[in-house]
Amino acid sequence: MESSRDSVASNTAQTPLSYDQAGVVYDLIDPLKVAAQRAAAATAGHLRTHGYTEVTASRGESAYVVDVGPFYLASIVECLGSKALVADEMARLTGRSAYEGIAQDTIAMAINDLITVGATPLVVQAYWAAGGSDWFGDSARAQALVAGWKKACDTCGVAWGGGETPALAGIVEPGRIDLAASCTGLIQPKERLSVGDRLAPGDAIVLLDSSGIHANGLSLARKLVERLPEGWLTEVAPGVCYGEALLAPTVLYSPVTEALWRAGIVPHYCANITGHGWRKLLRHPTACTYRVHTVPDVPPVLRFIQQHCGLDDREAYSTLNMGAGFALFVAAADAQRTVEVARASGVGARIAGTVEAGPKQLLIEPLGLRFGDDDLQLR
Amino acid sequence: MESSRDSVASNTAQTPLSYDQAGVVYDLIDPLKVAAQRAAAATAGHLRTHGYTEVTASRGESAYVVDVGPFYLASIVECLGSKALVADEMARLTGRSAYEGIAQDTIAMAINDLITVGATPLVVQAYWAAGGSDWFGDSARAQALVAGWKKACDTCGVAWGGGETPALAGIVEPGRIDLAASCTGLIQPKERLSVGDRLAPGDAIVLLDSSGIHANGLSLARKLVERLPEGWLTEVAPGVCYGEALLAPTVLYSPVTEALWRAGIVPHYCANITGHGWRKLLRHPTACTYRVHTVPDVPPVLRFIQQHCGLDDREAYSTLNMGAGFALFVAAADAQRTVEVARASGVGARIAGTVEAGPKQLLIEPLGLRFGDDDLQLR
Repeated sequence: MESSRDSVASNTAQTPLSYDQAGVVYDLIDPLKVAAQRAAAATAGHLRTHGYTEVTASRGESAYVVDVGPFYLASIVECLGSKALVADEMARLTGRSAYEGIAQDTIAMAINDLITVGATPLVVQAYWAAGGSDWFGDSARAQALVAGWKKACDTCGVAWGGGETPALAGIVEPGRIDLAASCTGLIQPKERLSVGDRLAPGDAIVLLDSSGIHANGLSLARKLVERLPEGWLTEVAPGVCYGEALLAPTVLYSPVTEALWRAGIVPHYCANITGHGWRKLLRHPTACTYRVHTVPDVPPVLRFIQQHCGLDDREAYSTLNMGAGFALFVAAADAQRTVEVARASGVGARIAGTVEAGPKQLLIEPLGLRFGDDDLQLR
Repeated sequence: MESSRDSVASNTAQTPLSYDQAGVVYDLIDPLKVAAQRAAAATAGHLRTHGYTEVTASRGESAYVVDVGPFYLASIVECLGSKALVADEMARLTGRSAYEGIAQDTIAMAINDLITVGATPLVVQAYWAAGGSDWFGDSARAQALVAGWKKACDTCGVAWGGGETPALAGIVEPGRIDLAASCTGLIQPKERLSVGDRLAPGDAIVLLDSSGIHANGLSLARKLVERLPEGWLTEVAPGVCYGEALLAPTVLYSPVTEALWRAGIVPHYCANITGHGWRKLLRHPTACTYRVHTVPDVPPVLRFIQQHCGLDDREAYSTLNMGAGFALFVAAADAQRTVEVARASGVGARIAGTVEAGPKQLLIEPLGLRFGDDDLQLR
């Protein structure tokens, strides 16, 4: 009988595991976010006193952009989230530190958002807040964090400016670390600015491959482990266990966007596919229909999570990246070359669909899925 | 007998409370810092591939500076530290939220460092990492944080670009919040760059008043409360209790540095007096003697901490700001006008001393104190 083949899957299929169960309650955070967004927007006028102006269209986008005259300035701060907890569990089980990859994840959170507006990332600052001075006393782990941070900066061609390494006993849990990165970049020449005014029907959607879960959906992934008979060590693919697979570092996409610029391709819009999964394809504020005809292969760890959490395709694609980490919306004539440039930069890519005139919706045709405007409210 | 006059003071005088006892062990953090600084310095070359260059003298200064052609770009990320724990304790005792002031403290940590290099702060990003979604459910507290953040941005004339509000259960302690700010600014015109090459014997030292402990020394201050018979509610001045006094928000100094620029005064060097107290006056790398002839009044809460922790003047001035939150090193001819400009901006100030040729040392003459080069190793 099929149900006996995989008792975990059949078990969880009866009691699906949702994001709310994983402990993140957006209803509690959202009123604060709205108040903060309003207050933040009201400060834009200060820039004029210094002779600069806000690019108002960047409010609500992934990075904030200021017109400083000869070029635009973009800045951001981003948190890793809870992926470090997986690294801690795996270190406990295997004795190996995964903090080199965790460093890359943290930088990717900032860099991959910053580049959506067309910026070249220039400077990264490290924010490493530990639960106590003793976190830094594990020198193998600390050195892995440093080495990974440096390597990710090298990959992205950014300068590591400095940062903070506070010991925050009483605020950060003992033995844990809160990791974040801030990033500043320039949009030069100004034609590289990408805040969506160029997006138009007829554009192609190019999806760049993810390496796995990246750093979004980890609360759900950590919750799932309680249901797995072998926990973190459960196999998700031959020779690869769940914990290891989750720890695949997030792809850094700035080498692709920089290579595109050198190749003369300016994306009309970009979306970093993080929280809210493929609903991020609906990020652009105007009404267009996004028709996807080709989906990437789903990384084994994401297929595993979908199956064992009992998520249908709609839930899976609206929560996880399902193999697509970054979306580029480009002129149809540039689409094939965009794919080639990405691949030459070492990142898998495919033409996945088209932008059409029509109601605001995302159609993932191979899966028979439709997401409407109601499905994503970020602004 | 004098020892019976103040049993707490005499008690603590026998067992002084040091910073190490307060739980921050720099010996564990410092090897990581050195490794990180070396790795960071090795990334500077990436800027050249984009056509920019690092201002190498800014490595080791309070903010990182890049020459982007028409002007300099400065950036930073800074943590509040543990001051929010005092706000939480006082809220528990009084029912009042101090998070409006805490927001100002957090922004001050970033802004007051950024301006040391001559930058005009332009954009602040908020990093508010809570121990769970429920932190944001206390709407009075959350709204105070938003209001205070907005107000501090208004005071400094910066745009609040956005930020992150993650819920990090398992990393941040339940009910707590890890607060940080990143800030990006421009140094324009480039003559405003202040990384110390102008500092010279004959310069005057102008000290700007602090409002109290600011956000450095809080681990010690929190440790002390265990020894106070009435704890947080112990009076430190008529009608002002210890907890309230500690929560006086950090002074924002960018209105002073911006007003100085408008008045035609370019500081030769600046030092934000934070951790390591007055030893920060020794921050500049070259050998000079800093002779202080006038010290500011000590805020009651700092005098109280000194007395009740049993710190001698040497320990107190090498740990706490003791009334001076920011140091400006200016041409002697500009000194009096610097004081006037600061006061006109609402910040108390005084000419406190002079820079002289001589061995690297800080002489605080009214207190008979000398700090040598060995007393501060930041690089």
